[in-house]
Amino acid sequence: MRVVVPYAAEAPKTRLGGVLDADERDAFAAAMLEDVLYAVRDAGGDPEVLATAPVDVDAPVIVDDRPLTDAVNDVLEATDEPVAVVVADLAIVTPDALVRLFDADGDVVIAPGRAGGTNALVVRHPDFRVDYHGASYRDHRRIARELGASVAVLDSHQLATDVDTRADLVEVLLHGDGLARQWLVDAGFELAVEGGRVDVRRA
Amino acid sequence: MRVVVPYAAEAPKTRLGGVLDADERDAFAAAMLEDVLYAVRDAGGDPEVLATAPVDVDAPVIVDDRPLTDAVNDVLEATDEPVAVVVADLAIVTPDALVRLFDADGDVVIAPGRAGGTNALVVRHPDFRVDYHGASYRDHRRIARELGASVAVLDSHQLATDVDTRADLVEVLLHGDGLARQWLVDAGFELAVEGGRVDVRRA
Repeated sequence: MRVVVPYAAEAPKTRLGGVLDADERDAFAAAMLEDVLYAVRDAGGDPEVLATAPVDVDAPVIVDDRPLTDAVNDVLEATDEPVAVVVADLAIVTPDALVRLFDADGDVVIAPGRAGGTNALVVRHPDFRVDYHGASYRDHRRIARELGASVAVLDSHQLATDVDTRADLVEVLLHGDGLARQWLVDAGFELAVEGGRVDVRRA
Repeated sequence: MRVVVPYAAEAPKTRLGGVLDADERDAFAAAMLEDVLYAVRDAGGDPEVLATAPVDVDAPVIVDDRPLTDAVNDVLEATDEPVAVVVADLAIVTPDALVRLFDADGDVVIAPGRAGGTNALVVRHPDFRVDYHGASYRDHRRIARELGASVAVLDSHQLATDVDTRADLVEVLLHGDGLARQWLVDAGFELAVEGGRVDVRRA
């Protein structure tokens, strides 16, 4: 199974602008990508990075500067075997979660992200195409239904947690064990528990 | 296995105050509780409600108005068999997720909630006691480690999603299929997709 990891190589993670400057966002995004590639390999996959610009990473890189939906659909169109698409900011993903994803039965397997996204996907139906804009989880279910393709939904907190916001950094500090978590720790981030609520603070 | 479902019977879900009034929060919390009880039963469990005040529900009710930690620890102390503790606001939980929880090996099985909570727990070690304040996921791992108890972490988006805030209502509309989702729909809530972000709006 091909495993494609889309990566926004330029100005990634803008919603972390309140806590990380542009260079830091680049470095943190690169650390998350490395963690995802590691987990994919450990789960038995052979990852390829689908990047909006050339990136220096120890994996094959396909450069495609079009919107995510177009770039992924080109891969789906060009491939006869099953394809997995795993987003690059799953900083707490473990190989176990990806094994569950790869092993799940279904013409289309969807791991929803928080707030309606599609964080990971396995496509085994030749005519399925993605549409990542908006509530893509709902749209991908509809697209599969219209094709008569069977759908499985993978229930995983790790796969649901794409890291976009300050609140997501709590998850990385609590559950991560790779480069992204270490990057945050080295940058001075730690958990802050106040009044029963959990947040991050930076030393 | 005993399955205890703690329930704040008085003034629940205050963080939903921006979108629901007090009576609505009562009704929505009661709908979520019913959904959780249904899922527990369908997963083979026999739920008991551990409530801060008497509630009218089709299950045995233990009333204990002390803080959650004390009330749960009393149950653990009084019980020789394994005990599961499943919070009452898991509006998108399915029986499948609870079967995975109940079947997971470990002296202590923890399903983390978003932001460091402990949304579901199986306790098979006689000396394990809970501490729900703050980052309880981290604290429960530490408590287990200090006892020499084995820990399993259950990776589930459904169990990670306790419904506290407006953003969580997105998850209920997308993934729920029980009374809580229906309550939201009847109250006029629907998904609002704008600029690629997904939110809720009320008609």
